[in-house]
Amino acid sequence: MMYLDNSATTKPFPEVLQSFMKVANDYFGNPSSLHGLGMQAERLLTQAREQIARLLEVKPTEVIFTSGGTEGNNLAIKGVAWQHQQRGRHMITTAIEHPSVTEACKQLEQLGFQVTYVPVDERGIVSPTHIEQALRDDTILVSVMHVNNEVGSIQPIEQIGMLLKKYPKVLFHVDGVQGAAKVPLHLKRANVDLYTISAHKFHGLKGAGVLYVREGVRLSPLLSGGAQEMQLRSGTENVAAIVAMAKALRLSVEKYHESSARLGEMKRALIERLQAIEGIVVHTPFEQSAPHIIHFSLEGVKSEAFVHELEKQHVYVSTTSACSSRKKAPSKTLLAMGVEKMRAERSIRISLSYEQQMEHIPIIVEAIERAYERLKIVARGTK
Amino acid sequence: MMYLDNSATTKPFPEVLQSFMKVANDYFGNPSSLHGLGMQAERLLTQAREQIARLLEVKPTEVIFTSGGTEGNNLAIKGVAWQHQQRGRHMITTAIEHPSVTEACKQLEQLGFQVTYVPVDERGIVSPTHIEQALRDDTILVSVMHVNNEVGSIQPIEQIGMLLKKYPKVLFHVDGVQGAAKVPLHLKRANVDLYTISAHKFHGLKGAGVLYVREGVRLSPLLSGGAQEMQLRSGTENVAAIVAMAKALRLSVEKYHESSARLGEMKRALIERLQAIEGIVVHTPFEQSAPHIIHFSLEGVKSEAFVHELEKQHVYVSTTSACSSRKKAPSKTLLAMGVEKMRAERSIRISLSYEQQMEHIPIIVEAIERAYERLKIVARGTK
Repeated sequence: MMYLDNSATTKPFPEVLQSFMKVANDYFGNPSSLHGLGMQAERLLTQAREQIARLLEVKPTEVIFTSGGTEGNNLAIKGVAWQHQQRGRHMITTAIEHPSVTEACKQLEQLGFQVTYVPVDERGIVSPTHIEQALRDDTILVSVMHVNNEVGSIQPIEQIGMLLKKYPKVLFHVDGVQGAAKVPLHLKRANVDLYTISAHKFHGLKGAGVLYVREGVRLSPLLSGGAQEMQLRSGTENVAAIVAMAKALRLSVEKYHESSARLGEMKRALIERLQAIEGIVVHTPFEQSAPHIIHFSLEGVKSEAFVHELEKQHVYVSTTSACSSRKKAPSKTLLAMGVEKMRAERSIRISLSYEQQMEHIPIIVEAIERAYERLKIVARGTK
Repeated sequence: MMYLDNSATTKPFPEVLQSFMKVANDYFGNPSSLHGLGMQAERLLTQAREQIARLLEVKPTEVIFTSGGTEGNNLAIKGVAWQHQQRGRHMITTAIEHPSVTEACKQLEQLGFQVTYVPVDERGIVSPTHIEQALRDDTILVSVMHVNNEVGSIQPIEQIGMLLKKYPKVLFHVDGVQGAAKVPLHLKRANVDLYTISAHKFHGLKGAGVLYVREGVRLSPLLSGGAQEMQLRSGTENVAAIVAMAKALRLSVEKYHESSARLGEMKRALIERLQAIEGIVVHTPFEQSAPHIIHFSLEGVKSEAFVHELEKQHVYVSTTSACSSRKKAPSKTLLAMGVEKMRAERSIRISLSYEQQMEHIPIIVEAIERAYERLKIVARGTK
C-alpha cells in the first residue's frame, strides 16, 4: 500500500499509540482532581505543554490545547471577533483558506462582521501588499494559512507578520495545520499572534490540537466552563491524546527535518515527470511550496474515478482536500489561481510523508500513467 | 486502590481501549476521503452512530459527535442562542448547573442575552412550576441538568418536558453528562430537544461525546468548516474515540443496569452510616438521587486535607466537582440548597462505579472515620 493522502490524515506513529495507551490506562485521572491520580494527570499535561512549547519555541502558557485544527481556527477567528468587536468588526483573510477559516468568517458575516477575501496569484500565493491594502481602521484580524492544503503553496507569513508590526491593533492568525512540523516557521520572529496546529496531520491522533496564543492576546472562549487552558478552552483535558501529540510533534520535527530535502527533490521529480504526461497539468508551484504536496489535473477523466482506479494499484490519493472531496466541488484554490473550472474539477492531490523514498517516484508515476490510460480508454468507449 | 471519583472521570473499560487501538492503527483514514481507507473509517463512524442511536432510542441523524460534555453544552446553549436570537434573547436554567452551562449563559449575558437562574429546594431539586413561572414570550431555551454532578439529585426532566409541550417554541436542553447510562431517561417521551453526554464519564475515553439534537431543531454551529456531523460540528471525526465510545456506552448500559439496584442500596447504606458519624452531614437526598453519588460535609476539617488524608488509605474521593475543586470554591449546589457556607466549603463527594460491591461499604466508612479522626486530632493540636 502506498498511502499518499497525508494532508487528509496521517497514520499515527507506533510510539504515539503506545503513549496514548499507557496514559489512558494508567493515568486516567481528571487533571482537575485534587488527589494523586489527578495530580499525575496534571503533571503529564504540564510536561506535554512544556515539550510542545519548546518545539514551537514559545512559552508553555501560550500553548492552548484544543480538539484539533477546526476548533483552533474557529477559536482564533470567533474568539478575536467576540473579544474585540468594540474596536472593529472587519477581518481580512485569503481566497484559498481551509473551510474552517472561511466558514467561520461567513458565520461572522451573518452576525454583522465584514470580511475581505484577498485574492492569490497563479501560483496560489497571496501578496503582502494586497493584505496591507485591505487593512482598514476597523480591522481586528488578518488570517492567512501557512501552507495551502490543496496545492501546497507556502504563504509569505514572515513578510505579512513584519508589515503588521506597523498595525499593532490588528491580530495575526495563521492556520498552520498543513505547515507545522513540515515547513519551518519561527512564530515569534514572524510576529504571529495565533497559530493553529492539528495532531493527526503529523502522525498524532485525531481529536487533539494546539492553538498558540501569544501572551497578552485576549480571546473570548468558544467553550466556556471549568476554566481549563488558561480559561480559553474549558473541558476535561484529553490527557492521553495530548501526551501522544507531544510525542508525535517531537518525532515529526525530527523525521521531517531529516527527510525535508529528500521530499523536496521528490516533489520536483514528480512535478517534472507528471508535467511530461500529455493531458496532465501540475498546479503546485515548483518553488515556494511545501515539500510534501503535489497537485495536478487530468484532462478528460473524472478525478473521483481516477482516485478509485489508482486505488486498484494500492495507491491512495485524494481529489482536493478531504473536507471538500465528498461535496465533489472543484478545488477552491485552483479556481482562485485562475485555473479553468473544468480542470479544477479534475484535480488530484498527492501528499507524501517522511516514509516515501526516491525509489517510489517511478512506481507512483507509472501507477498514475496506467490509471490515466485505462480511464481514457473507458472514456473513449462511452463516447 | 478504591477509586471513588467516578463523577470526575472513570477508568476506561479494557475493551474500550482495545477498540480504540484497533481503529486508530488499522483504520486511520479520514472519513471524508474518497478512497477505501476513508470509506472504512466512514463505515465505522456510521456503525458507531447507529449503535449509540439504538442505545439512546433516537435516530442516527440525531446523534452529533462532539469532543465531550463541555462542547456539547456550549453547542446546545450558544447554538440555540445564535440561531434563534431573532425570536428572543431569554433563557432559563437552574442555580446548580455545571460550569459549562452556567459560564456559557454568562458569556451570552455579556452579549445581550438575559438568563433566569431558577433556584432549587433543600434537596437540590428544581421545581417544574418554578421553570414554568420563569417562561417569557422571548424565552428560547430551558436548560436543566439530568443528574446534579455534586450531590446526585435527579431533576424532574419528564415533568419539565411535559409542561414545555405547551410552549413549542421553547427548546429544551438537558445536560446528561452525569445521567447517561446511570439513570434511565427516555429522551423522546421526555420531550427533550438536546441532550449532552460525555464518554469519559461512562468508562469511555476523554475527547468524545454526543449532543443529541432532535430532528428539526436548528442550531448555529460552534465549529464551522468541513460540514461534518450534519453541518453542526465540523472537524475531522475522532473515529477511534467514537467507536470506543459506542462500546463504552453499550457496556455501561449493561453493567449499570445490572448494578443499579445494588448501587442504590449501597448509597442508602452509606448515607445512613455516614449520617451516624458525629460532625458529618449528608447532603445527597435519600430519594430522587442517582445511585452512584453521595455528598457530605465534615465539621471542623478542611475538605482538601480530608481528600489527601483519605488518599493515604488508597481511597480517592473529591471535594465538589473536579472543575471547581482546584478553585477551592464552596460547592455551588450546596449553597443553592441553602447549606451554610462553612459546610459548603467542607464537603466531599463520593462517586461509585459498577465495580463497587456491598462489602466495600464498611471499608469506605472506616477509612472515612479514621481520616476524620486523624484530622480532628491535628486540628485540635493547632488550636
